[in-house]
Amino acid sequence: MIRVAVAGPRGRMGALAVETLVTQRDMLLVGVLDRKMAEQSATIAGAVPIYTDMATLAEESKPDVLVELTTHETVFSHAKEAIKEGIRPVVGTSGLSAEQIDRLAELSRERGLGCLIVPNFSIGAALMMKFAAVAAKLMPEAEIIELHHSGKKDAPSGTAELTARMMAASIAKSKNLNDDPDKEDGTAVIPIHSVRLPGLLSHQEVLFGGEGQLLTIRHDSFSRESYMSGIKLSVREVMKREGLVYGLDKLIG
Amino acid sequence: MIRVAVAGPRGRMGALAVETLVTQRDMLLVGVLDRKMAEQSATIAGAVPIYTDMATLAEESKPDVLVELTTHETVFSHAKEAIKEGIRPVVGTSGLSAEQIDRLAELSRERGLGCLIVPNFSIGAALMMKFAAVAAKLMPEAEIIELHHSGKKDAPSGTAELTARMMAASIAKSKNLNDDPDKEDGTAVIPIHSVRLPGLLSHQEVLFGGEGQLLTIRHDSFSRESYMSGIKLSVREVMKREGLVYGLDKLIG
Amino acid sequence: MIRVAVAGPRGRMGALAVETLVTQRDMLLVGVLDRKMAEQSATIAGAVPIYTDMATLAEESKPDVLVELTTHETVFSHAKEAIKEGIRPVVGTSGLSAEQIDRLAELSRERGLGCLIVPNFSIGAALMMKFAAVAAKLMPEAEIIELHHSGKKDAPSGTAELTARMMAASIAKSKNLNDDPDKEDGTAVIPIHSVRLPGLLSHQEVLFGGEGQLLTIRHDSFSRESYMSGIKLSVREVMKREGLVYGLDKLIG
Amino acid sequence: MIRVAVAGPRGRMGALAVETLVTQRDMLLVGVLDRKMAEQSATIAGAVPIYTDMATLAEESKPDVLVELTTHETVFSHAKEAIKEGIRPVVGTSGLSAEQIDRLAELSRERGLGCLIVPNFSIGAALMMKFAAVAAKLMPEAEIIELHHSGKKDAPSGTAELTARMMAASIAKSKNLNDDPDKEDGTAVIPIHSVRLPGLLSHQEVLFGGEGQLLTIRHDSFSRESYMSGIKLSVREVMKREGLVYGLDKLIG
Repeated sequence: MIRVAVAGPRGRMGALAVETLVTQRDMLLVGVLDRKMAEQSATIAGAVPIYTDMATLAEESKPDVLVELTTHETVFSHAKEAIKEGIRPVVGTSGLSAEQIDRLAELSRERGLGCLIVPNFSIGAALMMKFAAVAAKLMPEAEIIELHHSGKKDAPSGTAELTARMMAASIAKSKNLNDDPDKEDGTAVIPIHSVRLPGLLSHQEVLFGGEGQLLTIRHDSFSRESYMSGIKLSVREVMKREGLVYGLDKLIG
Repeated sequence: MIRVAVAGPRGRMGALAVETLVTQRDMLLVGVLDRKMAEQSATIAGAVPIYTDMATLAEESKPDVLVELTTHETVFSHAKEAIKEGIRPVVGTSGLSAEQIDRLAELSRERGLGCLIVPNFSIGAALMMKFAAVAAKLMPEAEIIELHHSGKKDAPSGTAELTARMMAASIAKSKNLNDDPDKEDGTAVIPIHSVRLPGLLSHQEVLFGGEGQLLTIRHDSFSRESYMSGIKLSVREVMKREGLVYGLDKLIG
Repeated sequence: MIRVAVAGPRGRMGALAVETLVTQRDMLLVGVLDRKMAEQSATIAGAVPIYTDMATLAEESKPDVLVELTTHETVFSHAKEAIKEGIRPVVGTSGLSAEQIDRLAELSRERGLGCLIVPNFSIGAALMMKFAAVAAKLMPEAEIIELHHSGKKDAPSGTAELTARMMAASIAKSKNLNDDPDKEDGTAVIPIHSVRLPGLLSHQEVLFGGEGQLLTIRHDSFSRESYMSGIKLSVREVMKREGLVYGLDKLIG
Repeated sequence: MIRVAVAGPRGRMGALAVETLVTQRDMLLVGVLDRKMAEQSATIAGAVPIYTDMATLAEESKPDVLVELTTHETVFSHAKEAIKEGIRPVVGTSGLSAEQIDRLAELSRERGLGCLIVPNFSIGAALMMKFAAVAAKLMPEAEIIELHHSGKKDAPSGTAELTARMMAASIAKSKNLNDDPDKEDGTAVIPIHSVRLPGLLSHQEVLFGGEGQLLTIRHDSFSRESYMSGIKLSVREVMKREGLVYGLDKLIG
């Protein structure tokens, strides 16, 4: 049984995480961390106690893992404190600085504990990006189409930009696979097309063209529940690791 | 400059391979091996000499690599002879027996030479199958849709069956990633749907469903030219390897 | 301003319909019909009065249109009464008998009023089925792939079966377009493939193959809201018609 | 039996048309029109005679239909002469002026003969464009993705631009279906995304978004043979018509 705590249980992701983790047969939700929630009640989700500070959470509920889903101000200090208390953090944010990440890497290595930082908990999105980076080595001519509801004002999406950056880095490193002297030097630019239509949710397609063929990798995200399998995987995996791992794709064979 | 020879230059794949390899700036097509063709001419593709036996081909044209595209009867003896002459074979067939493969592995290890056996030279198809096997570890609920022209009598396609087998093997091995006690034991069965319509060429789609999301990997093969990039990659890679490698997917990061 | 009433405002469709119609600038929600709801309150959605019988609804709120979303037992009598009161029914059910439909057709013709029966309010699904029937005349070789979440036990889906029937009827009638003597007689059978995966919502794809080409018509239904545009269209269209119209596709150019 | 002649049998479309029409059991290829070809031979495709002028072609081979696949300089005069000789023209070009089209309409009406002008013989493409125009009336928020091989320099494609124009015209005319006062006035602009990748052939996707749903119409053109079914349909249909018809979509129910 993995003893799990959740920081930030009032947010949309946090509430869904509590609901999900409480039903896992190999996990025990032993506490949540939330100052405001504690003012109104002592427990949630049946009888899970609510704590207002890490020290008491650690002492009383003895979690193995802390799923950290609070906001930018508190996430770093929570993760640091957790490691000091011998708790493995699973941090769901892309907002940590390079220095903060280095510090967590150092601390978790010293204590011999796993520590995961996961900017995007969607397993399907992580697989799409990982596969896109691999495919780009061998089929470097590619374009991205990302499709979102009309309400999304920014374009291209952050996921599309990250995918394109991962692909370009992968192409730059792949000289050994494509040492065809015809290949031009320079940075690959992956065009991104942004479709915005009412009704759409969150979709992305990466197309790779080659002589006589097309490879397509597509991810459709239909609801916030798509993040839950990534949270469950992260809790199970952080138990097996030592030191810091950044990104769900690093947990994927 | 990689010195390349082609065995089987009269077949459709062989003819296309000759045409393709002759234009690579880092390769030199130094000879072809074909008894029947030699009866009519001494050279092809400009001034590339035609040989009727491996020993003379080896002695006169000194190839680094032999691209072997003949039929089942001759492919094994050609590959064996090539290794003995110090030539690295790139064998495009799925028809070798386990014993023959073991023998080539042994010979190539002894001589410290690379040897590739590649049942399918399409890089896109290899990527699709590799990615499908990886994704199945984390999203084991999946189905395959393969689409071919009405003229294709057999169903499901060999590629769909191979993909399903690779996925099932991958799911069976992934207990460590999914050690959720809810997961049932037993072999995964990946349903395959076969669409047969006039106009279609060769297409396959692998769909992975998860909570709130869908991941799709699709490969469209529009023409025989899709095999050429795999042949070029194989020629470049066999130069860097020692011993036998089976399958294009093993050359892919 | 079109004066609209809703019968069945407690159901999921009915509640969503009330919420939607109340915000249309060219419509006025003048009342709802619901015996049980009336026991607890006199109004909903601000100050919309709740009625327990058609006569009072008609007399006090004078609706032009009744959106009928109750169950099989009451839908026919409601529609009949509505026409007698001079109200145009928009009936969202596939459960009426042929005799009941004939009777409503007769009544609405006599009164010179529009009456719509709409088994499926999704405009996208209606377009998909209509287009599939048209395309089948010219590209009769076709297959259907329908994709739903694993929880859907029946296969193929009702929409897929209805689409296939509409296509087969269309092919049978199209002799004049395809009077190619090579064409075989007999009923066209459109194969249906059913994909069931967790995460999926409701999706259908119709593929038409022809020499050197493929035509694909696909509909993705992401939420119950997809029915609302069909309800709004029906309310606007029933005002312009006389007599009975069956199916949203008949309202489409 | 429909007696057919082909003008322009040396071009790629013309050669394929000869090959196709000769195998239709309800057609008889009675002659071709080509000055240059006649210098070298008297017949093609077995024993089909080659003519150098329309009058002799008409007199000796008595065609019912002329499939006109020559270039801009001759197409108009050929079509005009054909009608005068009592032959129905099927003209495969988008290069006629408005005056020329009016003249052919007048001539064919006077003689009581059918006359088809077909800028694009692909039935699938015609269906896609027709359906896109119909769907745009009811789901006016739409985007187009067109995908072609890297060799295609111009973007967007002519087909994508024509589709967008047809959709915008359809939206402008559909006030009666969407008389929602919230709808803004002005011309609809349909965004077009152009994907250019090696390996691609000719593909187009039209996406329509609505509340909770997505409708997609896609056409894939894999080879020039996709035009042949449109030519066969045109030959059969021109026999049943009187006067001029412009565009394959007008022949489609």
